[in-house]
Amino acid sequence: MRKIGVLGGMGPEATIYFMQQVVDAIDARDDSDHIPLLVDNNTQVPSRIKAILEGGGKDPGPVLAQMAEGLVAAGAEALVMPCNTAHYYADQVATATDAPFLNMVEMSCAEAGKIAPGGKVGLLGSPALQQVGVFEAALADQGLSSVYAAEQGRALATIRSIKAQGPSEFAAHTLSDICAQMVDDGADVICICCTEFSLLASAINARVPMFDALQVLVSASVEYSRLGASSPSVNEGGDAQRSAVAP
Amino acid sequence: MRKIGVLGGMGPEATIYFMQQVVDAIDARDDSDHIPLLVDNNTQVPSRIKAILEGGGKDPGPVLAQMAEGLVAAGAEALVMPCNTAHYYADQVATATDAPFLNMVEMSCAEAGKIAPGGKVGLLGSPALQQVGVFEAALADQGLSSVYAAEQGRALATIRSIKAQGPSEFAAHTLSDICAQMVDDGADVICICCTEFSLLASAINARVPMFDALQVLVSASVEYSRLGASSPSVNEGGDAQRSAVAP
Repeated sequence: MRKIGVLGGMGPEATIYFMQQVVDAIDARDDSDHIPLLVDNNTQVPSRIKAILEGGGKDPGPVLAQMAEGLVAAGAEALVMPCNTAHYYADQVATATDAPFLNMVEMSCAEAGKIAPGGKVGLLGSPALQQVGVFEAALADQGLSSVYAAEQGRALATIRSIKAQGPSEFAAHTLSDICAQMVDDGADVICICCTEFSLLASAINARVPMFDALQVLVSASVEYSRLGASSPSVNEGGDAQRSAVAP
Repeated sequence: MRKIGVLGGMGPEATIYFMQQVVDAIDARDDSDHIPLLVDNNTQVPSRIKAILEGGGKDPGPVLAQMAEGLVAAGAEALVMPCNTAHYYADQVATATDAPFLNMVEMSCAEAGKIAPGGKVGLLGSPALQQVGVFEAALADQGLSSVYAAEQGRALATIRSIKAQGPSEFAAHTLSDICAQMVDDGADVICICCTEFSLLASAINARVPMFDALQVLVSASVEYSRLGASSPSVNEGGDAQRSAVAP
């Protein structure tokens, strides 16, 4: 099995949740059946939200590229980054090493395209996703369009509360409210695309199909580790172009 | 904050649990308040139980030493190993690098000595601990002695069931039974010293004080990361001698 390098710590709860999902995805008889992971649970990556929304602050890009290099130098054979917002820096991560980068955003857009071909995808994530259009190009590649939370402040406050206090019932209610509004605004499918919200996935209600970008990444990680197969949404390192995502 | 290197994957559930406990130990306002960890969640370490109990099989020692070297090369400033049985190889880990090794076994014996000075410590762990006396020297250093499960087969079967199916109510009942027998045999304090059993710590009942070796390691990791202070039970790398554990 190939060792998967994890650019983690954004936040640490989400990284742990990703690791747990990878464990749960395996029908194991012993430790050795599980996927080997090398995890840089780097809690000191400069705030992505701050850098994108408020400008200034330290640039997370070079830190993420350095983490990618370190993981590959230490034996990682492919890279993943269980943080949607951080995918704003996906090209810097993908080009930092020769190892494939399993791009959660592109794979999630491909998944949305399967569920609602040509439809509108409600992106349940941080306001930073909309601000800089993290999903827009990958959605367009799939012939999809986006719907966002009307009250981005509520989404941001919810992320901050989960980072500080962990998941709560109140947070789940707020997120269900946001889903209802996005469906009213035309969303055909909801993509949970903030790993903080993934912690609450089972408690969020929506009237349309909903899936979690993190679970898409979990499946891809397990598949890559076991088969080494290059999935259509793997960014090959060294290639500055975003890879095409097969429909 | 200093980055702590984690020799993990023994098993992966226990590693994740350790990481979660480190997160829970911090009263955080944002990601950056959390402890940075570099985790080699290596699910392919040869079975410690097999190597110790059955003989033959691949030797885990050199693999663990190599993991230690890799973690330090990748930036870890101290090392921990959230697996009690693997501490049979503690000297190989501690001497593999110049970074301090926070020895869970020695720190736990110091903790037991505080709770029950001069007493008997019921070791709720794998049969391999007794077979090769992983805790014996550190207990003797504290003026303590050991009590083990009379039916080691039940403990081993419970570890295997948790590794394969996760924690269960049945497993917790079995472990409470074993605790009762160890108290009958004179245990003054119970030390949970198998990270698989840590997953069930709150569900295990005992008539004497009980603590979890993993929690001792969590506290030491947080303290070391924040203060960089060399605790009395830190094995300094490069020194083949087991460090003395202050009472």
